[in-house]
Amino acid sequence: MPKRLALGIDIGGTGIKMGFVDRNGRLGQTIRFPTPAKTDPRTMADLISRQARALLAPKSRSLIKGIGVGVAGDINPVTGVIRLSPNLGWRNAPFKALLTRQLHYPIRIDNDANVAAWGAYVLEAKRKVKSLLCVMLGTGVGGGIVLDGKLFRGSTGSAGEIGHMTLYPDGIPCGCGNQGCLERYIGANAMAEAAKRAIETGLTTTLTRMVKGDISKITPLLIYEAARKGDRMALQLYEQAGERLGIGLASVINFMNPDWIVLAGGLSRAGRYILNPLRRTLKKRAFPTPLKAVRLIVSSKDQDLGMIGAGLIAHE
Amino acid sequence: MPKRLALGIDIGGTGIKMGFVDRNGRLGQTIRFPTPAKTDPRTMADLISRQARALLAPKSRSLIKGIGVGVAGDINPVTGVIRLSPNLGWRNAPFKALLTRQLHYPIRIDNDANVAAWGAYVLEAKRKVKSLLCVMLGTGVGGGIVLDGKLFRGSTGSAGEIGHMTLYPDGIPCGCGNQGCLERYIGANAMAEAAKRAIETGLTTTLTRMVKGDISKITPLLIYEAARKGDRMALQLYEQAGERLGIGLASVINFMNPDWIVLAGGLSRAGRYILNPLRRTLKKRAFPTPLKAVRLIVSSKDQDLGMIGAGLIAHE
Repeated sequence: MPKRLALGIDIGGTGIKMGFVDRNGRLGQTIRFPTPAKTDPRTMADLISRQARALLAPKSRSLIKGIGVGVAGDINPVTGVIRLSPNLGWRNAPFKALLTRQLHYPIRIDNDANVAAWGAYVLEAKRKVKSLLCVMLGTGVGGGIVLDGKLFRGSTGSAGEIGHMTLYPDGIPCGCGNQGCLERYIGANAMAEAAKRAIETGLTTTLTRMVKGDISKITPLLIYEAARKGDRMALQLYEQAGERLGIGLASVINFMNPDWIVLAGGLSRAGRYILNPLRRTLKKRAFPTPLKAVRLIVSSKDQDLGMIGAGLIAHE
Repeated sequence: MPKRLALGIDIGGTGIKMGFVDRNGRLGQTIRFPTPAKTDPRTMADLISRQARALLAPKSRSLIKGIGVGVAGDINPVTGVIRLSPNLGWRNAPFKALLTRQLHYPIRIDNDANVAAWGAYVLEAKRKVKSLLCVMLGTGVGGGIVLDGKLFRGSTGSAGEIGHMTLYPDGIPCGCGNQGCLERYIGANAMAEAAKRAIETGLTTTLTRMVKGDISKITPLLIYEAARKGDRMALQLYEQAGERLGIGLASVINFMNPDWIVLAGGLSRAGRYILNPLRRTLKKRAFPTPLKAVRLIVSSKDQDLGMIGAGLIAHE
């Protein structure tokens, strides 16, 4: 009998990915398409169901274990209700119910960082460690926790929100109502904002030339390219992001004492630009014993980790 | 057959308590004596063994389940080595081995906040919740975590160190090597320091009269008494401590999403003086869903929670 597959669906702020995932996290056929702007839950469920059916049609029904969905926001994994998704602009959307009406497979839905953490646990830690924290450094900053071989969701499925731990108590207001959240300082959006502000104050950088003077076009990817060309401002932005991430992770290392920390998402691809200041800060700020014990890695799956993890939660 | 008992031992910075604890956390006979200053691990083990033997002598051997010890610091609960205890000034002390030589019972040793968390879990949560964070607001600030009905120690037994999460990244240097640690702002020592500094800048307070002008005599208990008398500075110190604790706990609520948070130790007895600003800050800073779910209580066992918890870990 061929190996059973799950369909993993990653609903991101800019793109949606879906693909077949076997129980070890190996990826089969995938498709991706842009996230439609300002779509209500029902229209989104229609769109996703249509695409999923097209993928599922040629496969024997008995081959498919189920469907897993990862989406940014405050999700109730038991009821499948998206309580709040700032990216999609949704509140209390019964998204699992909407999908179940059209896709007659077992469906699981969870926070995107939670499914990514599960993906990292199965695929990269090979289920061999007891605890793992996955940090998604994307547009914002998310986190997921695996403990004792299980996804740790906390009391209401909200656990892992490292992006909304306070970095600077008197800092920048955050959309969540708090101020000084980590996400406001090291998310991709935050870095692009910081670049724009620095340029407006008159700093010279190759970034200005790269966007032909239109600083609204500065993206995290461009900052990375500028850093690779040795641009001082870009390098400094990474230095700062790495240090700030280090302040947050040092707190988490002291509090959670995890076996592994896996970094994923756009910023994690900046490699040593961010890892060097990060490691330096951890050494300065975290307790020696838990710091020595923790293994800090960058996910090799990066952009696909969410989709793979979504498929893997459907295998459980 | 009578109920089996464990001997719980709480080694604090100023006092040592030991007492019999049944498996539900009920306390029997106890003794307490001051912690000798600057004692090496061997002398301390001799002292504790002597006192423990005196307590144990009248009891039938088969009645005693074992001995549990809680001590502040970085403990390896597997080997029973105290890796670091700033309070006692010890490094890599094989304390369990030293005790085992003299006390021929099964011995368990763990961090004081860990055993307190276990005590709160068994005694106050009646083992009925899935996750609990216990915050010890003493001389410093410690924390212990219970997850899925088990003490969560993390990779190296260091988990729960909420006192060494960073509150102000550019803040006061901490003995641990970090700066701006929560403990530096809301521990009893930190509050007494803040009171002294405020008085030195010329603030009037009934505290000055209470210590007859000798501000080195200001203690957390005196600050509490001054607050009860309506002293503005004392009230403001609690206000500030409550707010700062709230900033830290909001981060923890977003990250860990616990069912219960139990406050214990000196500062927790300040009741509404600290709880009002704490709750106000949580409401402002934590995510609504996990905040609504968490139950925040002050331990009713307070000073005895460490001893009871130490006994309870010996019952496991």
